Amino acid sequence: MKIFISGFGTVGQGVLELLLIKKPYLQTRQGELFSVVGVVDSKSYYVDSKEICGLCVLGNKASQGRVSDNPRDGKSCIEIMEMVDFDVLIETSPTNVEDGGEGLRNIRWALEHGKDVITVNKGPLALAFSELDALAKKNGCIMRYEGSVGGAMPIINLCRESLAGQKIKSIQGIFNGTCNFVLSRMDNGLPFEQALKEAQQLGYAETDPTYDIEGYDSASKVVILANSIFGRDVRFSDVSITGISSVTSEAVNLAIENGMVIRLIGEVSDTKLEVAPRLIPKGHPLALSGTLNTALITTDFAGPITVSGRGAGRKETASAILSDLLAISEARRKN
Amino acid sequence: MKIFISGFGTVGQGVLELLLIKKPYLQTRQGELFSVVGVVDSKSYYVDSKEICGLCVLGNKASQGRVSDNPRDGKSCIEIMEMVDFDVLIETSPTNVEDGGEGLRNIRWALEHGKDVITVNKGPLALAFSELDALAKKNGCIMRYEGSVGGAMPIINLCRESLAGQKIKSIQGIFNGTCNFVLSRMDNGLPFEQALKEAQQLGYAETDPTYDIEGYDSASKVVILANSIFGRDVRFSDVSITGISSVTSEAVNLAIENGMVIRLIGEVSDTKLEVAPRLIPKGHPLALSGTLNTALITTDFAGPITVSGRGAGRKETASAILSDLLAISEARRKN
Repeated sequence: MKIFISGFGTVGQGVLELLLIKKPYLQTRQGELFSVVGVVDSKSYYVDSKEICGLCVLGNKASQGRVSDNPRDGKSCIEIMEMVDFDVLIETSPTNVEDGGEGLRNIRWALEHGKDVITVNKGPLALAFSELDALAKKNGCIMRYEGSVGGAMPIINLCRESLAGQKIKSIQGIFNGTCNFVLSRMDNGLPFEQALKEAQQLGYAETDPTYDIEGYDSASKVVILANSIFGRDVRFSDVSITGISSVTSEAVNLAIENGMVIRLIGEVSDTKLEVAPRLIPKGHPLALSGTLNTALITTDFAGPITVSGRGAGRKETASAILSDLLAISEARRKN
Repeated sequence: MKIFISGFGTVGQGVLELLLIKKPYLQTRQGELFSVVGVVDSKSYYVDSKEICGLCVLGNKASQGRVSDNPRDGKSCIEIMEMVDFDVLIETSPTNVEDGGEGLRNIRWALEHGKDVITVNKGPLALAFSELDALAKKNGCIMRYEGSVGGAMPIINLCRESLAGQKIKSIQGIFNGTCNFVLSRMDNGLPFEQALKEAQQLGYAETDPTYDIEGYDSASKVVILANSIFGRDVRFSDVSITGISSVTSEAVNLAIENGMVIRLIGEVSDTKLEVAPRLIPKGHPLALSGTLNTALITTDFAGPITVSGRGAGRKETASAILSDLLAISEARRKN
């Protein structure tokens, strides 16, 4: 199985690393070789129709040329994908929830050319899920995106496979570790600004934390769940979003005095599509502290199922991508 | 897909009920009809090569004859399975960890005759896993048993599918809701005997609670996880087992004074196979109270994953069986 990785940043490199480390194990397990034949980031690319030298591109980032949307400055990502034959595109470009950006263009091209796609890029999924889903079906392609919601926390494939046959009534969850870290620190008496500063110092929050703090990241995940698990056709702009920047120390203290905590909860059901800070009783599965993600899945017959895991991280997100890759390999072997 | 249910008690009837309730949904989802063509319990049986009347056997338990190991008193379960053509055996006889009992005989017969098998019967899996696994492979049969550990809590298929590609380093969990209820009530100041009595009154514990309280039930689940997830070849007798009957109120109080609780934890890894009461810090995922089951799965790259759900119950266990049935239907469709 030949793999092309677009968006060769933290997560993309993590995938290549994982494939290198697990190579002997995967070969034994699947009876199949996984070869990365191309990687491209925003600046440079490297392709080899047999298999690229993983350690070269990981270490000193060896490059075969420049990448640019301007033909005078370099090749576009699509031109590079055209240079080499491959089976699966792993799309890990940075999320763009304005227009889906390059990630959306790459996924569209891959599906139109009969490639299976694995992505953790929330932009294309939050903006154009039904288009991409239809495109995949039309061209007989598999599109998987476990790592786009909750990182290493199993959720999408869990609902589809382990909970097959269940009517999922609702999913409520903590889908952003940055917000949860900030709120957990506020439980300990820190004001919002200071908790956020700490999150930034620890590398949990970006220099511009708007995307996380204002609930946009959680909202994009809620959209992905709505479309993939609930069969809805919604977009980012359909979500009712309230972030955590207006959560005051007074509110947090009042909650604690009443045996509760404030958490940023995303909720999705057949009718609901919301991200908002909520009061959660201590001891409730959603009263989680720290940076983990968690989801409470309510089903018709199996009752409530709770799952939690690391919502982000290089190895963790790469692990989710690997599980999708193995599922595609299994499915293709059976066909 | 034609189904035979052996062990038509609470769970077996729950499966038939679920199949009746979900019939239109399943037909749309899978493009395939699931027909139960035979049911047998310890006393009577009912078969129909097309489809049995579900409401007849559920309601007044209509019978076509008596079941007995003594040929003069009735037919054996195997003789009844021979009367009708079917694809999948759902084995839900009561657990027998002495010799596997009728459940083991039924599963052996089914695999020898090319039938796929779904079971939640812990006896055969804890006693003869590797034999049954080899038999299934030899005959090209699928054997699934999600509901045998943790009821509706996804664990076996979660490890195999959602966490595919991960090295599972260990699984620690609460695998017996009865023990956890008793220990949770002891946290509230009840002595062991009184907590157990309450569990019996609420229907969480059997009249003879030995199997649960002494850790045997948890041990059989630990064996199933060891064999299925860790690829070990162990039996019930290999588990180091300590139950909860020796947990004193003094010990529980001392734990609480130190910010901990006592929980009956099953642990399995490449080298460990143990069930014992352990001190768990409050706030830890395994410091769960009540009757839920939970598992903390430690992986090499995805980090820790925690899952919890209802560990027992008619609907809940039937739901796990349904997910296995749908997975078999998918796999058979692809072949």
